[in-house]
Amino acid sequence: MAATSWENSVKSLKGVILDMCGVLYDAGEDGGTPIPGSVEAVKRLKASDLQVRFCTNETQATREVFVAKLQRMGFDICVSEVFSPAPAAVAVLKERGLRPHLLVYDGVVPEFDSVEKANPNCVVIGDAAEKFSYQNLNDAFRVLIGLEKPVLFSLGRGKYYKEDEGLNLDVGVYMKALEYACDVEAEVIGKPDPMFFQKVLDDMGIQSQQTLMIGDDLVNDVGGAQHCGMKGVQVRTGKYRPSDEKHPKITGDGHVGAKMAEAVETILKL
Amino acid sequence: MAATSWENSVKSLKGVILDMCGVLYDAGEDGGTPIPGSVEAVKRLKASDLQVRFCTNETQATREVFVAKLQRMGFDICVSEVFSPAPAAVAVLKERGLRPHLLVYDGVVPEFDSVEKANPNCVVIGDAAEKFSYQNLNDAFRVLIGLEKPVLFSLGRGKYYKEDEGLNLDVGVYMKALEYACDVEAEVIGKPDPMFFQKVLDDMGIQSQQTLMIGDDLVNDVGGAQHCGMKGVQVRTGKYRPSDEKHPKITGDGHVGAKMAEAVETILKL
Repeated sequence: MAATSWENSVKSLKGVILDMCGVLYDAGEDGGTPIPGSVEAVKRLKASDLQVRFCTNETQATREVFVAKLQRMGFDICVSEVFSPAPAAVAVLKERGLRPHLLVYDGVVPEFDSVEKANPNCVVIGDAAEKFSYQNLNDAFRVLIGLEKPVLFSLGRGKYYKEDEGLNLDVGVYMKALEYACDVEAEVIGKPDPMFFQKVLDDMGIQSQQTLMIGDDLVNDVGGAQHCGMKGVQVRTGKYRPSDEKHPKITGDGHVGAKMAEAVETILKL
Repeated sequence: MAATSWENSVKSLKGVILDMCGVLYDAGEDGGTPIPGSVEAVKRLKASDLQVRFCTNETQATREVFVAKLQRMGFDICVSEVFSPAPAAVAVLKERGLRPHLLVYDGVVPEFDSVEKANPNCVVIGDAAEKFSYQNLNDAFRVLIGLEKPVLFSLGRGKYYKEDEGLNLDVGVYMKALEYACDVEAEVIGKPDPMFFQKVLDDMGIQSQQTLMIGDDLVNDVGGAQHCGMKGVQVRTGKYRPSDEKHPKITGDGHVGAKMAEAVETILKL
């Protein structure tokens, strides 16, 4: 995209969707730390004419707990502005009368309180981290293989994410494992699923071409957004790796700043 | 294949390759129990003009320990007749000067005693069972993702196997997980890799079309053997599931007996 074309499209923006981990903050054992400038950048965005939403594939905590953590870091954010896979999954399960066997992190279990779980007829996996033991994965496998038509939901399809001590495997890896074991294709709930992004657009009441997504994940954030007709840019924080820049998705206008704060600065100037 | 064609090809047989778990015995916490008739059938095969070899993707113990277990069950079997992935992997590692990070069951580690393992430049995974913890899989992932060109060996590509208490996930599932995480394709050592079967044929000094493989796994035993030009038949024990019979590979002459003993009976009669 030529510079003028990029400038013109940024001028027509009406909303910005922000990924959270790796964009707003770096995860860590102590809950994480804000990426320099990001707290202020969220404030500036919210003070502008642009609508702002937060879109995460985080599935280790309820939105309430997760948002409280971000608020303690200083972010101006509330639960109704945050879109995450677990509440979206609950809506799908209820709509289709499905009773999940859950393989998720303990912290996110309360999101599923309102769903019937006895005698499961599907499996839902999230970023269960150390709960992805052999025994737990085998239990989920046995539920699936015992169903006449196995139904598997994956809360996102991420490969890995970055924490203080290095890269950690994400839910997508275990999704692939169960897909192979049971000859099924998982239904992904979360980024980059277009239905998931559409719910965020509906909430803002704007069109995809009026929206910009800022994320650190080439596939789930940038690719997912572009696939829906949004603009998608990748920051050089979080799980960003230099080799990402070789990807056609983000050449040209794919990077508008090394950090989220610089990307916001660029957008607000135009 | 018409009955006469099948009979003719069985008459030209010079060797039989037997899968072990699910064919000779059923695995279990107590080490397993022989499948009725199989001890006697091995004896009868060995007393015939046919050559006999054993070919397993077992990677939870050294061949020595594994064979001793089978001997205690009453099988006439010795280490030199058994082909398993770990010794084949050791040969490949040495040939290519590779230093493995091992994610394997403790029992099979001694097979790798002669291999340099410091500063790893590849990952080898086997059927690690409960050692497939999140932490251990993440450690293997970090080794792979840190290599300029990740090299992953998988000792087999099985999806699951049967033990007393039900189906258990096998190494192939974790192979798919790491393949997805690192954008690599694993090199499979073991069934159904044609190179692996060829070593068994070389040892017998016969051609593939003179050889019959008896197994319980549709893909690794029957499909793998047929892909190499051998005859492959599936028994109805072990991980066999009725839906396997719908598969084109095993319609027609795919089953010559519900148990290995009956298959051997049929072959020796012709």
